[in-house]
Amino acid sequence: MKKEIEQVIKEIRDRQSFFITAHVNPEADAMGSSLALAWSLRQIGKKAQVVSHDPLPKFLSFLPHKDILTQMPRIASPPDALFVLDCGDIERTGFFDGASRPSFPVINIDHHITNKQFGTVNWVDPGAAATAELIYDLDRDLGIDLTPEIAICLYTALLSETGFFAYSNTSPKVFKIAAELIERGVDPWAVAQKVRENSIGRLHLLGELLLGLQQTEDGKIAWVAVTQDHFKRTGTTAEDLEEFVGYPRSLKGVEVALLFREVDTETTKVSFRSRDRVDVAVLAQLFGGGGHQKAAGCTIKSGLKEVQTRVIQAVKKVLLPS
Amino acid sequence: MKKEIEQVIKEIRDRQSFFITAHVNPEADAMGSSLALAWSLRQIGKKAQVVSHDPLPKFLSFLPHKDILTQMPRIASPPDALFVLDCGDIERTGFFDGASRPSFPVINIDHHITNKQFGTVNWVDPGAAATAELIYDLDRDLGIDLTPEIAICLYTALLSETGFFAYSNTSPKVFKIAAELIERGVDPWAVAQKVRENSIGRLHLLGELLLGLQQTEDGKIAWVAVTQDHFKRTGTTAEDLEEFVGYPRSLKGVEVALLFREVDTETTKVSFRSRDRVDVAVLAQLFGGGGHQKAAGCTIKSGLKEVQTRVIQAVKKVLLPS
Repeated sequence: MKKEIEQVIKEIRDRQSFFITAHVNPEADAMGSSLALAWSLRQIGKKAQVVSHDPLPKFLSFLPHKDILTQMPRIASPPDALFVLDCGDIERTGFFDGASRPSFPVINIDHHITNKQFGTVNWVDPGAAATAELIYDLDRDLGIDLTPEIAICLYTALLSETGFFAYSNTSPKVFKIAAELIERGVDPWAVAQKVRENSIGRLHLLGELLLGLQQTEDGKIAWVAVTQDHFKRTGTTAEDLEEFVGYPRSLKGVEVALLFREVDTETTKVSFRSRDRVDVAVLAQLFGGGGHQKAAGCTIKSGLKEVQTRVIQAVKKVLLPS
Repeated sequence: MKKEIEQVIKEIRDRQSFFITAHVNPEADAMGSSLALAWSLRQIGKKAQVVSHDPLPKFLSFLPHKDILTQMPRIASPPDALFVLDCGDIERTGFFDGASRPSFPVINIDHHITNKQFGTVNWVDPGAAATAELIYDLDRDLGIDLTPEIAICLYTALLSETGFFAYSNTSPKVFKIAAELIERGVDPWAVAQKVRENSIGRLHLLGELLLGLQQTEDGKIAWVAVTQDHFKRTGTTAEDLEEFVGYPRSLKGVEVALLFREVDTETTKVSFRSRDRVDVAVLAQLFGGGGHQKAAGCTIKSGLKEVQTRVIQAVKKVLLPS
């Protein structure tokens, strides 16, 4: 990675003004990395602005973003270069499509193995737990002082992207960086409370889903299902489902966990999670979806009940001893 | 702490056989620390046995404990010394009371500020996040190789005692130790899954409690209540309530979260949790209980409904702007 990080540093040294963007529907790693990079660039006298297609999610509103984050660039003139972070392809920024490409150099920094190397400079490291880990490395090589603003952005990104230091990407390096960020003044309790903050509607929704939680007789498949009625009754939206598929996955003996979501009477979304050995990306692909080994999803043009039956049947087949 | 750890090391070097015990109803820090210490002592040729009053909790059954943990000592002869870990007073081991005291030296290692210094040697460090942190320090000074057995015990203890690296005791040192333990082969995903493993009954119970979740109009107090009926319907026990008070505490705007548990028609237990500034130990003391600033509890000789009314009233008073 030595060569790639040096190319990125050269781009930074040679230029003066930067836009930074990530993907649509940004989560903690996208936002934390972007904001941390903007604060870092400003520290060394550069102009830097985070430009996001979608607004900052509410649960991340505690991140320091004032005057540094906009949804539409305020400046009429284009920047000297554009950073695209945590984004597998440039279309996912929400600003470009096949026809419209940026007229300025693009610096592509990502940790997804599927990244399409669309940048003028590409620094893609699938070994990194989060894009925030790469921004940390960049800051270190640039001699950036990890101010409280930068530290809280990087910490929040690492915490979320590793599922509170639980996913298998939780490497020794992640813990070492976390140690340093705490030394720089991050309050782990305050961040954890903010990131996990719930509305009463969301917890009522969780209650309804858990009461409907089901498991196959052998215990290997477990699922919850959410209808439009659930959302109405609890005043919630699909955004409130974040992490809920973790509940069926937490059951003893489970191999595959599912969350079914009624989009409308003819459309159902399915989230697949694997506890361990099953590759759920393969399962989602059976229904035209995709994802990773442990987390995947698909959308099926059928009603909730029918989709449940079909998908559970398909999972059972995969789990059959061959 | 230098002097205390040296005294402990001297005791270890001078003696040959050890019992190790912690407190009744052992949690992850008690069990993880005890087992890690036993594996460590055996590594340097000592005889060591963990003797626990209560059995290993099911959720910790993945910890390596075969042939090293017993509920009753198998050997008739007393050990050369007894380690008491994570235990504020010796009565809490479940093996001694005011009248019966051990006839052999006691090595007391703990991180609770309330520890009664009951040992022949006392190493009490309230600055440590967990007793496991002290066992880690001891291992390092003894030159113990952190084998996979020791590493998983220490990691599980640290993870649990810091609430998955979220409580305010999550220090840089905790993260640095975690990094080293992962390097020693601990699988963070496997441990997290084991520690968080649920039964379907427990998740149904959670569902019922969340549907009953309530919050005062100003949002500052939130609570759930569990009856004997809940336990019966879901096939669960009080043990299954572990961590559930975290749900009302996670609500935006909450200052005090409560969990009411009907023990019988005339007895109610109350768990208090503070989000931030309120000292809930003071609140619990009003009802004859106690605890820490952020976590406390009490038992009240009244029915569930009456206790709810009285306790919520008391919390409201404390929250009034003075």
